[in-house]
Amino acid sequence: MSKKTSSNCMLAREVCQLKALVRAQNKQLCLLVKQVKDNCKQEGQSGSETKESTLRNLNPCIKCLNPDFLYHLGMDTESTNFPNVFGDVRFVCLSGPAQRAEKFASYFMEAIGLKLNAAVKLKDLAAGGHRYAMFKAGPVLCVSHGIGCPSLSIVLNELIKMMHHAKCHDPVFIRIGSCGGIGLESGTVIITKEAVNAELTPKYEVIVHGKPVQYPAQLDEDLAKELHSIADSCNADYDTILGKTMCAHDFYEGQSRLDGAFCDYTVEAKKAYLQKLADNCVTNIEMESLGFAAITHRAGIRAAVVCFTIVNRLENDQVTASPETMGEWQSRPQELIARYIRKSIYGSDDTCEEDDEELKKCDCDENAGCC
Amino acid sequence: MSKKTSSNCMLAREVCQLKALVRAQNKQLCLLVKQVKDNCKQEGQSGSETKESTLRNLNPCIKCLNPDFLYHLGMDTESTNFPNVFGDVRFVCLSGPAQRAEKFASYFMEAIGLKLNAAVKLKDLAAGGHRYAMFKAGPVLCVSHGIGCPSLSIVLNELIKMMHHAKCHDPVFIRIGSCGGIGLESGTVIITKEAVNAELTPKYEVIVHGKPVQYPAQLDEDLAKELHSIADSCNADYDTILGKTMCAHDFYEGQSRLDGAFCDYTVEAKKAYLQKLADNCVTNIEMESLGFAAITHRAGIRAAVVCFTIVNRLENDQVTASPETMGEWQSRPQELIARYIRKSIYGSDDTCEEDDEELKKCDCDENAGCC
Repeated sequence: MSKKTSSNCMLAREVCQLKALVRAQNKQLCLLVKQVKDNCKQEGQSGSETKESTLRNLNPCIKCLNPDFLYHLGMDTESTNFPNVFGDVRFVCLSGPAQRAEKFASYFMEAIGLKLNAAVKLKDLAAGGHRYAMFKAGPVLCVSHGIGCPSLSIVLNELIKMMHHAKCHDPVFIRIGSCGGIGLESGTVIITKEAVNAELTPKYEVIVHGKPVQYPAQLDEDLAKELHSIADSCNADYDTILGKTMCAHDFYEGQSRLDGAFCDYTVEAKKAYLQKLADNCVTNIEMESLGFAAITHRAGIRAAVVCFTIVNRLENDQVTASPETMGEWQSRPQELIARYIRKSIYGSDDTCEEDDEELKKCDCDENAGCC
Repeated sequence: MSKKTSSNCMLAREVCQLKALVRAQNKQLCLLVKQVKDNCKQEGQSGSETKESTLRNLNPCIKCLNPDFLYHLGMDTESTNFPNVFGDVRFVCLSGPAQRAEKFASYFMEAIGLKLNAAVKLKDLAAGGHRYAMFKAGPVLCVSHGIGCPSLSIVLNELIKMMHHAKCHDPVFIRIGSCGGIGLESGTVIITKEAVNAELTPKYEVIVHGKPVQYPAQLDEDLAKELHSIADSCNADYDTILGKTMCAHDFYEGQSRLDGAFCDYTVEAKKAYLQKLADNCVTNIEMESLGFAAITHRAGIRAAVVCFTIVNRLENDQVTASPETMGEWQSRPQELIARYIRKSIYGSDDTCEEDDEELKKCDCDENAGCC
């Protein structure tokens, strides 16, 4: 390749990058204009009603809590202006570890065309509580929930109160997690159609005043279908399916593993149990879907659970994938959710394809070092 | 104060500090010599038997796991030499948040007379797993367990396997946590005598193959008494008591709080429930003691739960203490456990008193700025 061609190619590449940047900024502007318009329209239509959140069945005592301390998130309504800081939240994405919540937030920032000044980084807004991590990427709040329903329940209670205090409208809650698959290749993405307990019923139990109270664990069927339809259009080299998710309260014996500290059953009993789950159409096992479905449903929140399988439980118990493989699998539900969020915000999900097409046009000989 | 007196005072202070350092180093040397002697004695007495851990009732399949992956701790028996790295562990101190585990490790380092080179810091040995945090301070392992029994159960299973692989002898497990007190002043320290579930029975339930299996939740009575006796000698301005701890699987409705996202009961019903707990001698409520007691008991591990109360539940639900107050309360069980560990290692707990006496002798006029 001649010097002139190489120089042209570099210029063309630069033009492409600038165009992509202009497009991202344009979308951000469109979003802001749309949000302003929507707010004006809503205020015009229903007056002061829009000043309250759309959440339902909430604790009537909340209004008496002045200030209200969200203890585990390390914040309260006196020192934080919730409508100002969180009033624009439209999506709450939860995942187990803090590190995953932070990664998702950075990814979503980029995916929806937001850019941080090079001198700053996203702040952990729940650092004061020392229990969970929370990062805000524009209208997307990415929060860690730890492991198991008791841990999840606390952060959900406090996030729901936050949405209420911030007067958020129709926030969508999505859990993005890892799970064991039943007869599925590792790395498969499962959108939960139904979350069930160990008795295979969609009920979440809480002991209140010493007595069990059951709540229906119901996710938003339309949201699950919408996510699935978006995934189908991806033509990826892995499957994304709708499935039935069993939520266990224990990782080892509660999921019939043979690699825990204790094991009082035989290999045959384990095989028979997992086969029974497969026969009952259970596609995956994790530890939070039941509480997540029940608690969001109770508050009238549209919610979904999207997991990637880290092991095929019909073949193995131990999770042996490398961090690189795990990272690749983890990006799969993340990309799907980003696609959904873009579609919800911009009305269509053409950002990446458009940019890719544009960039492809100026692809030169890689060996020449110009691309 | 004259310049000469001030200079003498500074020198005297320096001498005191150096003496304290020499004493700490001397104790460390004594400890190491004792450990070497003990090892020689044990090897002479029982030959190869001492090369196995003293844990009981473990999963017979563990020996077939080559390597064994402790997935949530981010380590395995192939890439980590467990006997080399963890073989000297005698105390495993668990607490909810990662930050607390790190603080405890630094505190215990100092408390047992160990010093780090100024150029290094304790490393989070479980960082690779992204779920828990783990710091090693000589023979003390400080680990976070998150919130709730499902989260605790995972790390306990993996720590027990670790103790087994590392061939540890009689490790003592202690959970140091926060709790709600029943009719007790905030900041009270409670050593759990008995851990009970919401039905007030000492049973921990795990659903195995779809059926509930109950395990006795039993802590070491002698250890609890020993801790209490050490605390009694402290003459502190707060109480340290032996109590009955109720373990809930939910923070808000499961503990009859009025400040959660939901609340379907009345203030009267809440009061009646908490009074019922008080009538049944329940002193405090937290979320891990039951699983902790049952899992350690099953493995034949001596274990204790020591908590500090962060709110008196007969008066309030919300936790409003400042970070400073919380820090002071948190240091109370920490000091008690450090006292116990020193006593176990050195045979007596005279370190702090001795040093304090020595330092008091060279106390000068504080206003003169020399002390």
